[in-house]
Amino acid sequence: MNQATFIILGATGDLSKRKLIPAIYKLIKHKKIDRFALIGASIKKTDIKTILENSKKFISNSEEKIWKKLENYSYFFELDFYKSEKYQEFKKFIKEIEKRHKLKGNKIFYLATLPEHFKEITKNLYENKIVTKYDHKNNCKDCNHPWSRIVYEKPFGHDLKSAKEINKCIRKLFHEKQIYRIDHYLGKELVSNIALVRFTNRIFEPLWNNKHIDSIQIILSEKIGIEGRGKFYDKYGAIKDVVQNHMLQILSLIAMEQPKKLEAKYIRDVKAKILKKLIFKNAILGQYKGYTEEKNVNPKSKTETFAALKLEINNKRWKGVPFYLKTGKNLDKKETSVHIKFKMVKCLLTQGCPSDSNYLTIKITPSNGFYLELNSKEPQTNNLIPVEMNFCHSCLFGPNTPEAYENLLFDVIKGDQSTFVRSDEIEYSWKLIDSIKKNKYKIYKYEKGSKGPKEINLLDNKIIRWRA
Amino acid sequence: MNQATFIILGATGDLSKRKLIPAIYKLIKHKKIDRFALIGASIKKTDIKTILENSKKFISNSEEKIWKKLENYSYFFELDFYKSEKYQEFKKFIKEIEKRHKLKGNKIFYLATLPEHFKEITKNLYENKIVTKYDHKNNCKDCNHPWSRIVYEKPFGHDLKSAKEINKCIRKLFHEKQIYRIDHYLGKELVSNIALVRFTNRIFEPLWNNKHIDSIQIILSEKIGIEGRGKFYDKYGAIKDVVQNHMLQILSLIAMEQPKKLEAKYIRDVKAKILKKLIFKNAILGQYKGYTEEKNVNPKSKTETFAALKLEINNKRWKGVPFYLKTGKNLDKKETSVHIKFKMVKCLLTQGCPSDSNYLTIKITPSNGFYLELNSKEPQTNNLIPVEMNFCHSCLFGPNTPEAYENLLFDVIKGDQSTFVRSDEIEYSWKLIDSIKKNKYKIYKYEKGSKGPKEINLLDNKIIRWRA
Repeated sequence: MNQATFIILGATGDLSKRKLIPAIYKLIKHKKIDRFALIGASIKKTDIKTILENSKKFISNSEEKIWKKLENYSYFFELDFYKSEKYQEFKKFIKEIEKRHKLKGNKIFYLATLPEHFKEITKNLYENKIVTKYDHKNNCKDCNHPWSRIVYEKPFGHDLKSAKEINKCIRKLFHEKQIYRIDHYLGKELVSNIALVRFTNRIFEPLWNNKHIDSIQIILSEKIGIEGRGKFYDKYGAIKDVVQNHMLQILSLIAMEQPKKLEAKYIRDVKAKILKKLIFKNAILGQYKGYTEEKNVNPKSKTETFAALKLEINNKRWKGVPFYLKTGKNLDKKETSVHIKFKMVKCLLTQGCPSDSNYLTIKITPSNGFYLELNSKEPQTNNLIPVEMNFCHSCLFGPNTPEAYENLLFDVIKGDQSTFVRSDEIEYSWKLIDSIKKNKYKIYKYEKGSKGPKEINLLDNKIIRWRA
Repeated sequence: MNQATFIILGATGDLSKRKLIPAIYKLIKHKKIDRFALIGASIKKTDIKTILENSKKFISNSEEKIWKKLENYSYFFELDFYKSEKYQEFKKFIKEIEKRHKLKGNKIFYLATLPEHFKEITKNLYENKIVTKYDHKNNCKDCNHPWSRIVYEKPFGHDLKSAKEINKCIRKLFHEKQIYRIDHYLGKELVSNIALVRFTNRIFEPLWNNKHIDSIQIILSEKIGIEGRGKFYDKYGAIKDVVQNHMLQILSLIAMEQPKKLEAKYIRDVKAKILKKLIFKNAILGQYKGYTEEKNVNPKSKTETFAALKLEINNKRWKGVPFYLKTGKNLDKKETSVHIKFKMVKCLLTQGCPSDSNYLTIKITPSNGFYLELNSKEPQTNNLIPVEMNFCHSCLFGPNTPEAYENLLFDVIKGDQSTFVRSDEIEYSWKLIDSIKKNKYKIYKYEKGSKGPKEINLLDNKIIRWRA
């Protein structure tokens, strides 16, 4: 029987409203949690009814019965994260609610705050014995000692130094097994499917190396702009906002060696090895026109809202295979996808050789699925034409597969860390990001709604046919 | 400009009526032949109008204009194949028609007869100088000397000895480049696509060997019975009727090494090498209930109407990979397909390992296409489920791709022998077939409309999961 108290720190923020409360609602609806309570904490003066009401519009077709249940089990606590003395009160508050709802004490702390608060909050949770380092040990089926798990929202720091400091602080106080560094892309069905598909299908492994693969594109294209997040975004930019986390996590799942088992420890071992061996080669940076007039953005800002990167992996499997990453705000479409381009075949035809190589495409958002592009014969002729074999995920399973946060919160409840990022992975990622000396690169302007700056083809010595 | 006179020997037979005349009609309709004449020859007393009328119902949606054109250019000649003196007259008749229609003299002789007549007809065509050995040499673009080509319908003999005799006879009189041994399966779109898809797509070659492939099934399942062909069928049986030709040809396209070029000479070189290295391992034979009561069938007949064979190829690429062939009359469905089963993957999951391996399926009839069966993650769980990636040929190109005989006659016009069988291929196939000592095997009875005899699982030491 699954039971837990969800404690959201930063309960009045956007993430809580748009994603976390809807995810908890879904966990109840889908009977993934049997008994629960929800405590929202924030410095703001508000109440739980207001918080929940603000979130309601992000739940499609909410059912009154389930919504009522959520309301009846939800509470608010006004907490200044920096006032240590308030945490004793907070502790009592949590206990009381647990008692009221006959909960045995399992807790999920969700730090839905900026990373600069992580250390202070963690320290206070620890010093006030709200969470102890030993709560993870009792995560066994046949004992009654409750567990506590702490979820850290991304970004985890803003560079290698800050990430190391946070890691150092939280790992001293808690056990790594209690620490869940979230990257919500790892909760997306097709992302969590990458490793499973690679290693349970015999046909992929022989092809998955520099002998057969020409290059790999990872694309995270956004149609939306910075949406009022000027202050945050202007400090971070595209590379720190999505490359360091989502895109490098996808890259590591695509590139990793075969783990001993498809379990958290082994998956993270092989992912970390990839991130460690990543080398930055080149970048084309861009900024959409009008960015510097956005609210809370420095009018002389050089922050990139677009980045195309060339990376390589210095290991036996991938030596010489470029990984092209492309991301941006205000582009022509919303799409996250991976495109594995195989090498050209030696042409055996006297006429009509294949014009392009084979591609394996993994579409992550907005549509889901695997696509294999092959050459085939056009009937009645010997002409080759590209044809597509596809496995459309949404067609088979419907479009209503759970959202990432629902999957990830369920993984926290189950204690499955395979979809969360380990401290070493975080640090290797930041190390790579820090090696990109952004001020050495020109910032090219691009039109809103375009494919990014025209200069994108200067990324490599050869022409890259971008696939999205 | 394509021009030729089609001369069908055996013009009153079933093949002529059902396939050849409709194919010529289609060649005209699709403008694949610019100028032509058609001469039907047979020992029977009849006329061309009757022959054409009998064929008309095998052409769907025939257009009057094209039909009229066909009628206006068609003739009949009464020919006893064994009366040498009649051939001089036949020669004059052909010349006259060529003159009448201003044809320059290109000729396609189609021997739509039983193989026992091949030698006699060939000899007479040669001795009367209707075809000469040197007509092939002039098959160049800028010279006016006409060509003559001779098409031999299958079966080409009934065992190795008879096939060798025919080959010896015809190769002495004509050049191999003039000789077109037909196997209409090679004219089917998906069959002629096998080599093209294998060798123009980089992803297949690395997987195409005994390291990654577990076994291959080739299935040619027929719903119809022997359809009045009792006399022929009882002499031949399933193995000589379809395994020796269609199924071994498909097998050789699947198994052949990469040819130097995708051209007739090189494709036939590598196909012949496979047929030479084929080894027969085991057979399960069957006969549908009621077969011995069919017209012109020996009431005590031991002829097989069903055969499941295990073959192996004794070369580096295929050593240890069983090729399972299955064919039969009066089975539960009509289907020709190839199923490439990949080896199982090492299971990395603590629970829910893949229950089956990956399959690549090539469907040839009645539906067309490539299908790849993979394991994928079921949403919200870590369960594996099989999913199918497919490239549906009929969906993309429509169901009306040309019939095999239209393609093959067009290849004869173009002088492309890549879809025809060379003498060595024929002989290696018969050698393999002769090595199956049928009388050593029990004939199991099976119900009409069933999947064949239940004993089919005794074919190998392991259980075969038949895919159709």
